[in-house]
Amino acid sequence: MRAALALAGRTRGRTTPNPNVGCVIVRGGRIVGRGWTQPGGRPHAEAMALAQAGAESRGATCVVTLEPCAHASPRGPACSDLLVAAGVARVVIALQDPDPRTASRGIARLRAAGIAVTVGVEAAAATASMAGFLTRRAHRRPFVTLKLATSLDGCIARADGESRWITGPAARAHAHGERARHEAILVGRGTWETDAPSLDVRLPGLEGRSPTRVVLSGRPHTSGAEASPSLSAQPGAMGDPIWINSPTAIATLPADHLLVEGGAATAAAFLRAELVDRLLLYRAPILIGGGLPALGDVGLGRLADAHGRWRLADARQLGSDRLEVYERQPCSPASSPTSAP
Amino acid sequence: MRAALALAGRTRGRTTPNPNVGCVIVRGGRIVGRGWTQPGGRPHAEAMALAQAGAESRGATCVVTLEPCAHASPRGPACSDLLVAAGVARVVIALQDPDPRTASRGIARLRAAGIAVTVGVEAAAATASMAGFLTRRAHRRPFVTLKLATSLDGCIARADGESRWITGPAARAHAHGERARHEAILVGRGTWETDAPSLDVRLPGLEGRSPTRVVLSGRPHTSGAEASPSLSAQPGAMGDPIWINSPTAIATLPADHLLVEGGAATAAAFLRAELVDRLLLYRAPILIGGGLPALGDVGLGRLADAHGRWRLADARQLGSDRLEVYERQPCSPASSPTSAP
Repeated sequence: MRAALALAGRTRGRTTPNPNVGCVIVRGGRIVGRGWTQPGGRPHAEAMALAQAGAESRGATCVVTLEPCAHASPRGPACSDLLVAAGVARVVIALQDPDPRTASRGIARLRAAGIAVTVGVEAAAATASMAGFLTRRAHRRPFVTLKLATSLDGCIARADGESRWITGPAARAHAHGERARHEAILVGRGTWETDAPSLDVRLPGLEGRSPTRVVLSGRPHTSGAEASPSLSAQPGAMGDPIWINSPTAIATLPADHLLVEGGAATAAAFLRAELVDRLLLYRAPILIGGGLPALGDVGLGRLADAHGRWRLADARQLGSDRLEVYERQPCSPASSPTSAP
Repeated sequence: MRAALALAGRTRGRTTPNPNVGCVIVRGGRIVGRGWTQPGGRPHAEAMALAQAGAESRGATCVVTLEPCAHASPRGPACSDLLVAAGVARVVIALQDPDPRTASRGIARLRAAGIAVTVGVEAAAATASMAGFLTRRAHRRPFVTLKLATSLDGCIARADGESRWITGPAARAHAHGERARHEAILVGRGTWETDAPSLDVRLPGLEGRSPTRVVLSGRPHTSGAEASPSLSAQPGAMGDPIWINSPTAIATLPADHLLVEGGAATAAAFLRAELVDRLLLYRAPILIGGGLPALGDVGLGRLADAHGRWRLADARQLGSDRLEVYERQPCSPASSPTSAP
């Protein structure tokens, strides 16, 4: 399953609206087929892995990160039917499919054909792997990652706005790799107009993976003020971004993974709306003192309310900087745009 | 030497103006004597270890974190003479004594008596262990630790001042342990008057180790404004702290280890004056957003000037909080009060 999950990561952020699935076919302790959802969503991971395994699929074990689909489409047959036809002996699945067209029907079809099915292996890792797809299903919006790059004292720039550079080359390269795994990247209007950021992926070989650019306009949610109307598309020197006028409008984006890059008011607007699932915190070992803070008012009622919302999921050293990845605690509220204020 | 360093830590912060030294006497692979500078400075570590070893000192190895003293005083004979008289065969020393009364004369006296002497074992650890004594010698001021307890976004309180609690019980207990290893603890006048902090050690068995309280009055160094005159001792409900009117006045404190606990203006004043040697950063996994920042203006000229000053020396998890300890980089300037602006 770890191998299947690694394959699933290859097209993370490029299979929308399909999930990014990984699949390996194992026979006699050897991997005879590998597959992952191809960019755009087809072929599916199982179809690719079975094609690679060929006749060796017969009697083999299929390990797949999501329940094989049970619905045929003009773009291909149902994967559960393909697995039955290939004669696999066993299917190991990480997660059941929340898609109502499959919803355990894929598993039922496999079992009806006499195939042994195991479900729930590495389910947590698979949930993280397909966070975009699953968040869209559960909350009708993209999975949102907020990126902050700060000094030890939580500043994102000096008081005069100087912010190049707080973090070093290794941290910046990592952040560009994160961009490549997101279909869309969002900044606030202030950042867009002041910094004119290109928001592209500047990594060799990944230049073509730059995400769709989105700008949050209107006044972000502060003190209950109404957002101003959308400015719609405004041509700019860097090309036309998509403009939205409220964090909840991310529901309409053609993206299952959204990276929010700032500034402080925009970050706070997403936190206020409970629309941040993951926090990427790049920290440089410097003190700025009296600089621009990372976050504006997030509408915190009492200090006690701030606790228990975030869980450290990963931490690593990037040159002299440190990256911490926090995930929203399972018990903490996750909002759908329609239920947000 | 590790054993000797551990013993040296027992009275860190309680031997001023003497160094906190640790010593073990080893004979036949067995430790036959242990000593550490006693509170107040006497007996010295070597005298205590030799007394414990008794006749077993003859032919033994003495391992000590600082060069044995060469000056007799009314409070006791010179340790180098004691070692010669005890007939030890070998002395292993971490650091030479910067005290001009000893300054390699202790080593010379040992060698003249035919004792084999090795110098420099675990010198870096010994330097850290005796940072207070060495900083006083080199810069004529205490070794200064700045403590900050912040949210992930670098806030020390909500905008309305609410700061209880950001960190959890494990982090707060650790911070009280740090207080017990400092002779003096300092806050700014604003914190003193607003929060009326007791600044004591609330750990079972260590209540008697509460440091001398110091309050920084006057306007801390901002934009070159002159500090106002000292208010001298002002009686208060919590007892009389020592009042000083400028960070550089710490030179006059009867302390070799000073813990600076805030607030933001005071922390910034010490950083501005280049008078922080060590940074204790307790961080809770919470976001406050729009709260009070950890630091005021530290007089940073350009962002590039902020880099290369701090080195991560230690990091540990304390409950759900994280402690990071940063040390001033060796290449970064360390100020003596007399050379500060």
